[in-house]
Amino acid sequence: MGNYYDKELPTGSIRFKCAKLCPESEGNRGKKLSRTIEITDVILRDSHQSLMATRMAMEDMIPACEWLDKAGYWSLECWGGATYDSCIRFLNEDPWERLRTFRKLLPNTRTQMLLRGQNLLGYRHYEDSVVSRFVEKAALNGMDVFRVFDALNDPRNLETAIKAVKRTGKHAQGTICYTTSPIHTIEKFVDMAEQLVEMGVDSICIKDMAALLKPQPAYDLTKGIKDRCGKDVLVHVHCHATTGVTMVSLMKAIEAGADIVDASVSSLSLGPGHNPTESLVEMLEGTGYETKINLDLVYKARDHFAKVRPRYHAFLSDITGVETEIFKSQIPGGMLSNMEGQLKQQGQGDKMKEVLEEVPKVRAAAGFPPLVTPSSQIVGTQAVFNVMMGQYKVMTGEFSDLMLGYYGKTIAEKDPEVIAKAKEFSKKELITCRPADLLQPEWEHLQAEAGKLEGNNGTDEDVLTYAMFPQVAPKFFKERADGPKNLASDPVAAVDPNHPGMLKAPINYEVTINGKKQKVTVAPV
Amino acid sequence: MGNYYDKELPTGSIRFKCAKLCPESEGNRGKKLSRTIEITDVILRDSHQSLMATRMAMEDMIPACEWLDKAGYWSLECWGGATYDSCIRFLNEDPWERLRTFRKLLPNTRTQMLLRGQNLLGYRHYEDSVVSRFVEKAALNGMDVFRVFDALNDPRNLETAIKAVKRTGKHAQGTICYTTSPIHTIEKFVDMAEQLVEMGVDSICIKDMAALLKPQPAYDLTKGIKDRCGKDVLVHVHCHATTGVTMVSLMKAIEAGADIVDASVSSLSLGPGHNPTESLVEMLEGTGYETKINLDLVYKARDHFAKVRPRYHAFLSDITGVETEIFKSQIPGGMLSNMEGQLKQQGQGDKMKEVLEEVPKVRAAAGFPPLVTPSSQIVGTQAVFNVMMGQYKVMTGEFSDLMLGYYGKTIAEKDPEVIAKAKEFSKKELITCRPADLLQPEWEHLQAEAGKLEGNNGTDEDVLTYAMFPQVAPKFFKERADGPKNLASDPVAAVDPNHPGMLKAPINYEVTINGKKQKVTVAPV
Repeated sequence: MGNYYDKELPTGSIRFKCAKLCPESEGNRGKKLSRTIEITDVILRDSHQSLMATRMAMEDMIPACEWLDKAGYWSLECWGGATYDSCIRFLNEDPWERLRTFRKLLPNTRTQMLLRGQNLLGYRHYEDSVVSRFVEKAALNGMDVFRVFDALNDPRNLETAIKAVKRTGKHAQGTICYTTSPIHTIEKFVDMAEQLVEMGVDSICIKDMAALLKPQPAYDLTKGIKDRCGKDVLVHVHCHATTGVTMVSLMKAIEAGADIVDASVSSLSLGPGHNPTESLVEMLEGTGYETKINLDLVYKARDHFAKVRPRYHAFLSDITGVETEIFKSQIPGGMLSNMEGQLKQQGQGDKMKEVLEEVPKVRAAAGFPPLVTPSSQIVGTQAVFNVMMGQYKVMTGEFSDLMLGYYGKTIAEKDPEVIAKAKEFSKKELITCRPADLLQPEWEHLQAEAGKLEGNNGTDEDVLTYAMFPQVAPKFFKERADGPKNLASDPVAAVDPNHPGMLKAPINYEVTINGKKQKVTVAPV
Repeated sequence: MGNYYDKELPTGSIRFKCAKLCPESEGNRGKKLSRTIEITDVILRDSHQSLMATRMAMEDMIPACEWLDKAGYWSLECWGGATYDSCIRFLNEDPWERLRTFRKLLPNTRTQMLLRGQNLLGYRHYEDSVVSRFVEKAALNGMDVFRVFDALNDPRNLETAIKAVKRTGKHAQGTICYTTSPIHTIEKFVDMAEQLVEMGVDSICIKDMAALLKPQPAYDLTKGIKDRCGKDVLVHVHCHATTGVTMVSLMKAIEAGADIVDASVSSLSLGPGHNPTESLVEMLEGTGYETKINLDLVYKARDHFAKVRPRYHAFLSDITGVETEIFKSQIPGGMLSNMEGQLKQQGQGDKMKEVLEEVPKVRAAAGFPPLVTPSSQIVGTQAVFNVMMGQYKVMTGEFSDLMLGYYGKTIAEKDPEVIAKAKEFSKKELITCRPADLLQPEWEHLQAEAGKLEGNNGTDEDVLTYAMFPQVAPKFFKERADGPKNLASDPVAAVDPNHPGMLKAPINYEVTINGKKQKVTVAPV
């Protein structure tokens, strides 16, 4: 790979801006932070990913950027796998153009992204030079903070990406995916934090994607990291709100020393989303912890997204309350509905209870991976197969790959009997090396393949789009010139968002009955 | 009044049950409680009052009672002013019958009610013998815990009710209405707690009806009460969820020693409602604080109310997220919309900003009353009048009564100039005594008046209904025999909540085709 990235000239303003913003460049590294609590707002990425199926168009985010940029956030998360995917699959937006636009519109605030380690934003492991090139390109296009995680918490799957971020001078955040199981302990998570610090990360993220992090472990884990790794190691806590306990967990993490916490502008918060920024700021009053947030600016952004939200009615999550049964079942809501769907398709909807009992067994056999994409789907599908056809009578390719180490290593030993069956089914061998070590250099090949596609613009960015989304990229390249599609619909505003199917205002349709077009207005009575 | 209540024979089971349940009867009084945190669920009263305009019919609560009764709650709040009002005004249910039914269905759990001190459940001050009689009747019909509050926090308005509760042997809870203002301090609230303890209350409630109680004051106030009044004084914390911070406040209150906290079964929680019970229980795991709640039973109640909720679509609150601007404006959401409505009616909707600036001034002039029913309406309406017609050019009767002490005393001195104007407008004098001291015995009169009404059943309970709701009682007595009306509507249930756009039952529309109106029914097939 060499130092190819040195050959590319960054636009001056971007390189300057980002360098200026990185904490280590400001001479903050090693200094004790005051008990100002910094906030990352996820409104431009995870909020709409969690609450409206990642469908928000860039044009609906642009009007809020000036307020968000000046509101005093540590960073604004605005890019990640699902937004990239949605851009090219649904919105006909170039995700790189989106990133450059954010960079221009957010001159005073760090941009932040979520990166799936060796998977980048895609669904397989990429060879190291592809990983490095992606990181370099993201940095050049305006990314400041890279939150790097791996679904199995295998640090080897983070290493290449973290090194690449460090080379760009940007902020490398190493991530612990929080989960619970009979073998997960605070100490083991702290061990992982220590490994990440040894890799040279600029901060540690505790990523609680399923809202499983209760107040006490939030305190213990944050304190554990600070005690073991040093007080100057920045701890950044990301929680979803799903279970209704994590606002308290953020408070406890702050009391234990957390430096930065994630929240979301309130009009796109709660339910499967995040805790509301405004509440977080207000919550700290009088506690000795302070934020730098200007709430008047956040309120402007809130009002903007409150107007945007109902227009995306068709994509909005049904869930506005809390869901606490995951604490017992350990099965995230999305995984539940997937499994139910699979069973019903086979006419075996009555077997759900057996499947729910099978999931923990399959998870144990696989070494207790966190149940997050893609491991949740892999474990869930295998549990369904086991109930329908008998234990491990049939094994999916993904599950045998998981058993044989092709996704990385898990925290616990895997069941040797199930490993033996996985070998049998897949005709593959068990591996213990880092999965990406098995990959051959692939950049030239990807470049050549991408180059053949109609509409490809010849940039490395397009090669990366093709590399990560080979099925979707061809259509996107071809249609890119048509410009962005906004999926928010105005007629939807006529539908009462709280009561789907009920109308608040008339809707006009053109209805063709027996081949004859009719103008039809449907109004509430 | 004498000892008239001794003449009435309670039904044995009720008296026995309640006596057995009262903590002082169990010998708990004076003993240090373990750090088991007790929970009161408000699902049968405040939850539907806050989230569905108090419209839930008894028949929709009955199926959940067995689960709630066995789930391990300290008490179940199930009666209060708005539910009483709604019963006779909208639901054609006898509120006393509702109470007796709850008593029968909840044999293992304390019943609890909210009582507006000297106002009982009505909107004026009642003479002491009426207050005592109401309390006695409520106790005889099955009430165990009386949470007694006054909108102005004037302890003199609580005294008669608290004494009456003590005479029945039931649990008298003295309440502090939490509010914020330039002159409200933790110390002043603790002073009030001390006064309540001196009155002989069995516990102190911190009532945070507007979700203004932030974590730090929640801690400080709870600790202040325990430090001043003694660790054995039970502290019970009631918070709404509106601002998104109060789950953390409950945690902090618990850390400071709170004994009992209020929550609501999750399917009717959050927004202007309360923090979800299930989340509260889960939140405490590992903290050293424990509850006795059986979540499996709570889940059954949750599923029941999740089914009931959409049928009350027409009454459901639109608010599902958080609202934090109240921290700055100090103006509750309901008061805001009232004032907006008043301005718009006068074609002066553009004056809202001036009114918002006027409210704190009017509140200061009135001695900083908490902004809660009825003081919020009284202060808000006067602010609107001041902006539309000039400062105190016109004064409402209620506002001059507030200024002249007819609602009780406020924590701060009132503005003498505004007092002078109130005298002028109302031709009334300033009073400093307890307002009810001015009232003449009124029971015989109320009894005579109630007796004249068609359908009156001759009981003291009916006299009380007439006393508290003289406008509504006549129609209710007349129509009572028709039996309960359930206002939940089926058309809404026609939409499958899990599959928006799919119907479970027919819906009627008015459809205009090529300019011609048609009545159309769309039905599932």
